[in-house]
Amino acid sequence: MQRLLVSTHPLLLPPPLAAFSCRQIRRILPQSRTAKPPSFSVCNCSSNSSTFKVKTSSELRSTKASSSTDSQPDPKLTALRRLFSNPGIAIDAYIIPSHDAHQSEFIAECYMRRAYISGFTGSAGTAVVTKDKAALWTDGRYFLQAEKQLTSSWILMRAGNPGVPTTSQWLNDVLPPGGRVGIDPFLFTSDAAEELKQVISYNNHELVYLYNSNLVDEIWKDNRPQPPNKPVRVHDLKYAGLDVSSKLSNLRTELAGAGSSAIVISMLDEIAWLLNLRGSDIPHSPVVYAYLIVEIDGAKLFIDDSKVTEEVSDHLKKAGVELRPYSSIISEIESLAAQGAALWLDTSSVNAAIVNAYKAACDRYGQNHEKKHKTRTQGFDGSNEQLDGPTTLHKCSPVSLAKAIKNEQELEGMKSCHLRDAAAICQFWDWLETEISNNRTLTEVDVSDKLLQFRSKQAGFLDTSFDTISGSGPNGAIIHYRPEPESCSIVDANKLFLLDSGAQYVDGTTDITRTVHFGEPTSRERECFTRVLQGHIALDQLVFPENTPGFVMDAFARSSLWKVGLDYRHGTGHGVGAALNVHEGPQSISYRYGNLTPLVNGMIVSNEPGYYEDHAFGIRIENLLYVRSAETPNRFGGIEYLGFEKLTYVPIQIKLLDLSLLSAAEIDWLNNYHSQVWEKVSRLLDGSARQWLWDNTRPIMQ
Amino acid sequence: MQRLLVSTHPLLLPPPLAAFSCRQIRRILPQSRTAKPPSFSVCNCSSNSSTFKVKTSSELRSTKASSSTDSQPDPKLTALRRLFSNPGIAIDAYIIPSHDAHQSEFIAECYMRRAYISGFTGSAGTAVVTKDKAALWTDGRYFLQAEKQLTSSWILMRAGNPGVPTTSQWLNDVLPPGGRVGIDPFLFTSDAAEELKQVISYNNHELVYLYNSNLVDEIWKDNRPQPPNKPVRVHDLKYAGLDVSSKLSNLRTELAGAGSSAIVISMLDEIAWLLNLRGSDIPHSPVVYAYLIVEIDGAKLFIDDSKVTEEVSDHLKKAGVELRPYSSIISEIESLAAQGAALWLDTSSVNAAIVNAYKAACDRYGQNHEKKHKTRTQGFDGSNEQLDGPTTLHKCSPVSLAKAIKNEQELEGMKSCHLRDAAAICQFWDWLETEISNNRTLTEVDVSDKLLQFRSKQAGFLDTSFDTISGSGPNGAIIHYRPEPESCSIVDANKLFLLDSGAQYVDGTTDITRTVHFGEPTSRERECFTRVLQGHIALDQLVFPENTPGFVMDAFARSSLWKVGLDYRHGTGHGVGAALNVHEGPQSISYRYGNLTPLVNGMIVSNEPGYYEDHAFGIRIENLLYVRSAETPNRFGGIEYLGFEKLTYVPIQIKLLDLSLLSAAEIDWLNNYHSQVWEKVSRLLDGSARQWLWDNTRPIMQ
Repeated sequence: MQRLLVSTHPLLLPPPLAAFSCRQIRRILPQSRTAKPPSFSVCNCSSNSSTFKVKTSSELRSTKASSSTDSQPDPKLTALRRLFSNPGIAIDAYIIPSHDAHQSEFIAECYMRRAYISGFTGSAGTAVVTKDKAALWTDGRYFLQAEKQLTSSWILMRAGNPGVPTTSQWLNDVLPPGGRVGIDPFLFTSDAAEELKQVISYNNHELVYLYNSNLVDEIWKDNRPQPPNKPVRVHDLKYAGLDVSSKLSNLRTELAGAGSSAIVISMLDEIAWLLNLRGSDIPHSPVVYAYLIVEIDGAKLFIDDSKVTEEVSDHLKKAGVELRPYSSIISEIESLAAQGAALWLDTSSVNAAIVNAYKAACDRYGQNHEKKHKTRTQGFDGSNEQLDGPTTLHKCSPVSLAKAIKNEQELEGMKSCHLRDAAAICQFWDWLETEISNNRTLTEVDVSDKLLQFRSKQAGFLDTSFDTISGSGPNGAIIHYRPEPESCSIVDANKLFLLDSGAQYVDGTTDITRTVHFGEPTSRERECFTRVLQGHIALDQLVFPENTPGFVMDAFARSSLWKVGLDYRHGTGHGVGAALNVHEGPQSISYRYGNLTPLVNGMIVSNEPGYYEDHAFGIRIENLLYVRSAETPNRFGGIEYLGFEKLTYVPIQIKLLDLSLLSAAEIDWLNNYHSQVWEKVSRLLDGSARQWLWDNTRPIMQ
Repeated sequence: MQRLLVSTHPLLLPPPLAAFSCRQIRRILPQSRTAKPPSFSVCNCSSNSSTFKVKTSSELRSTKASSSTDSQPDPKLTALRRLFSNPGIAIDAYIIPSHDAHQSEFIAECYMRRAYISGFTGSAGTAVVTKDKAALWTDGRYFLQAEKQLTSSWILMRAGNPGVPTTSQWLNDVLPPGGRVGIDPFLFTSDAAEELKQVISYNNHELVYLYNSNLVDEIWKDNRPQPPNKPVRVHDLKYAGLDVSSKLSNLRTELAGAGSSAIVISMLDEIAWLLNLRGSDIPHSPVVYAYLIVEIDGAKLFIDDSKVTEEVSDHLKKAGVELRPYSSIISEIESLAAQGAALWLDTSSVNAAIVNAYKAACDRYGQNHEKKHKTRTQGFDGSNEQLDGPTTLHKCSPVSLAKAIKNEQELEGMKSCHLRDAAAICQFWDWLETEISNNRTLTEVDVSDKLLQFRSKQAGFLDTSFDTISGSGPNGAIIHYRPEPESCSIVDANKLFLLDSGAQYVDGTTDITRTVHFGEPTSRERECFTRVLQGHIALDQLVFPENTPGFVMDAFARSSLWKVGLDYRHGTGHGVGAALNVHEGPQSISYRYGNLTPLVNGMIVSNEPGYYEDHAFGIRIENLLYVRSAETPNRFGGIEYLGFEKLTYVPIQIKLLDLSLLSAAEIDWLNNYHSQVWEKVSRLLDGSARQWLWDNTRPIMQ
């Protein structure tokens, strides 16, 4: 799955290529987390059952968003503005971002407040409502959709277009000086809120944290979907590889080393990983809404206890984790501050409500605290950063890195589910090629549904890991294309077809892209495909010294395209969770040279170079890889040299190659890969799919 | 010529990989500028003649440094310490760095104060003298030399070794709190002085700028070499390509755009380039000691007027450049401040004496100035930086970039002198191979002298561009090896021989490394050589989009070595001046990801991957390249794609190749290169050298 690397949050301008603190690395991630539009019509989570019912793409997408072309005064805006003057509120503007309180890439429907208030259902966007204006910022992917969905009460701000202000610039323009700008502090990271506060202060505006209620929720009321309440399950130790007590113990060693007495974790995948729990509160991501505080001598999970089964309760008790209501996080933070706890807060992911509650409570409980931890505020990159007010550690969460480095069992699960996933995909391609050769008319959504059907028959299948990108011809050139049943195209037998999809299994997470042609590709298509493959091979084959950041590798995936003046406008690789989020940090392989996290033995990355010709076709070839020792004959510098091992074993279409461009070594790579694909996947197939695999893994001659 | 990229200045710790301002990019450069040890026995610059007399390496190196093993109380230290308590001085410690007032890589003998006071003649080092201690910091290249040269009065600080403090940490340790640390503010960049000031302030020490005299000069007195006073010459327009008025006009456009009324330029190569002047104050660098102030409506060159011939005087007058005494720079800065001038000061290159004189004068002349320019302090990378006190522009000097982008005539001169240089080198290799095959015993210095002899016969030859690195066998593994007549090795017919050398011609500057074997190389040597060549070819062949920084390319030069766990501990490429310094910024190709300067059409870089096996052999293959449009069939993103064109045309030894490792494309590259070498250089050769060239440019079969 491709990960968008342009800035999509108008509040957060793209960071400069220089100057990267932990905070700024994080700032890149939330942007890319919005790469796949969260499904707007997710499973209606009213059932308390623990079985995972997955809807097909056509079911998911048949629900329409609310009214869109009404030019009457907008009743929602009227209701919202009425609240502005309420006692204890008294604001002149209110900002409604896309996020939930945990900076999740995909979010539960009940938290889609920006979509509710604006009618615009794209994954990325920020709404700002003043007493007389309402504006919505979104990026180039969504201009058309926003034009259709926004009523005349709204101004569409085409973020990134020349002359379009950021939200804060706009607020500085339209509000008379001294305005009060309200936000729900749970929906902004502490860093983002601080930045916003600073920019609007140029015009003497004040940022007002409305702790007590979200104003959109106030007006949403009855028709607001219930918060998800599906039960949590224990992630089996045979997949997790390390028990919760050991993980907590490792974390506590880090806390002690940093002089912290506790850490607040708000990223849902970090909590799921640390506690070996999985949930289904959010489509595509097997996580549960919760906060976690780990202290040196205890741990508290803040969660809706209706989701906690007896098994889960026992599992947590064994690891010394107590349960607390989800909503009691702030009072717990205040109580910790009162006890003089030194909190490790990753201000790039923890929300402003928590960080400010802690600061304010520390202020109340004296100055000693501040002094005690003043010297410990060292950033991930060794830079010194300081919070205003009471100071504590705010490095990147150590869980992020621990989670990214997979242990043997996690890798085993990933390998195993990738082979089952490969089997489903081979069945799918066999089916699709047959259908197309029989002149069957199939839409992009039809084939995506059929793929889900094949996958869901595989053992341990739970969900898709993101909305399938199924793009025929020109649609393949739209990097984050999401076919809709009403508007999608037919899969054209004479055009390139790009399919980017993935699944969640009990033992792992997959993400694969293949591009195929059912007829006769043009020489242009073959040249471009071949160059993309050459980039894919170059990255796959790379050996590099330990401590090398992923961005060093990015250009290898582009070099063959660059040779003829071609390129692609997205990063080359993202981290992938083990039975967790399909996008995770801290590592990446990107032309944005900001992420200095080295690739480490055991990390997983995608390898997905592409090429996109507007209004014509899109090409992407994506495998998942894991980092492993390259066992080189030398070890210059006394260090380890690393390389990649493949997780994905699915044929690459030979028909699309221009063999004259390939070197002998590249042909060897391809033949070797296909031989492994046959060896590993054929035993999971029979009948025509097995024949299809045989036909598509035959070596090519040099 | 290889450029050292480890930190050699103990005051300047290596910058973190993140967070690069213009200042920090500069901070990397001065470190690398110390890569080649300046010759300690340079031409004694007492002659006023305009002919360029170059001494041979053996002449240059026969002079010995001063006494070295004396264990008596050091009279120089005693004399220096006596000055500490003088009225108007009153210091507890004095720091003596290696630099001159212009951050030059090579410096004139009269400015080698650190060498004079300590007896240590290595190129990199900092001396610190307190009332009862004296310590010298140097890096790993010079530990042995420093041990030999320092008397027992000195403590050797092995910079980079575990537990060794930096100079400022040491001062904090050894001085009682509240100490006064003296420096000559002309010898520290403003940035370095500010950093020093901050670090020693942790222990309440004060940094004292001693403007009026350099304390080492005070005690050096009579036996101090005279400042260089050779005449300056005009750099012919046919080589410079652009007249001084046009260059000044371009610069003034930049000044006006930035809201500055004047710029102070202190880098000697920038002054030489801007004014189309060349000098011979410094070995290897055709520059003259001077400062330059360019105002919107005038320009002043601060220079010892005995160096200014009538021709130069006319040349400058025509461009509106007035002459001022070198020593009047500070009073001119004060006078500009009094007039309310807004100065553009690159605080990473301009010394603290100038910057502080400006700040102090602005303070005296009111506050308005500060406000006026507060918003203009934007760094090279778009970050905002602010000076304390009166604020003005302190971006990187715009001359640095303008100078790096060569015009057509500059490139023509570079091409032409590279062919003459190649002819001399072919004559040399032909001679050397014959001598070795006749069992002649030759030292590393002998062959270096002979190379100089061949070069000096070429038209327009002026000087070597750095001290020749001539290393046989294990000496080749010492990256900055400098053979000394007394101690150097014999060129061994059965070992690898590495030769890195370059020359200054009237029309350009060269820098080339070749590694050869006169007998039968081992398979290990052949594998390593082949992998180094593969890296060289990969970089040479790279095509990349405009706006790509050089560090993106660095890994391509290492990839083939990495595959087998090998690497080299230096950058891959540095900028080269056109008839100017052999090392220049702002671009570089390095694994230190700090330099975000993109490679631009017309820039020159070296391509010099290597591999060094301690106590065994060293390999480096270096060509100079220039950046040019790649004229790709596509231009994705509407931008230009760039590639490299070679300047250096000298055979690469085929005997050292393991052909089984080379791809067909790599063999094509080599055959094509050798065919061009023959075509371009053969017409400059006759006799046995021509035959040698023929023999060494025959195609190899695949």
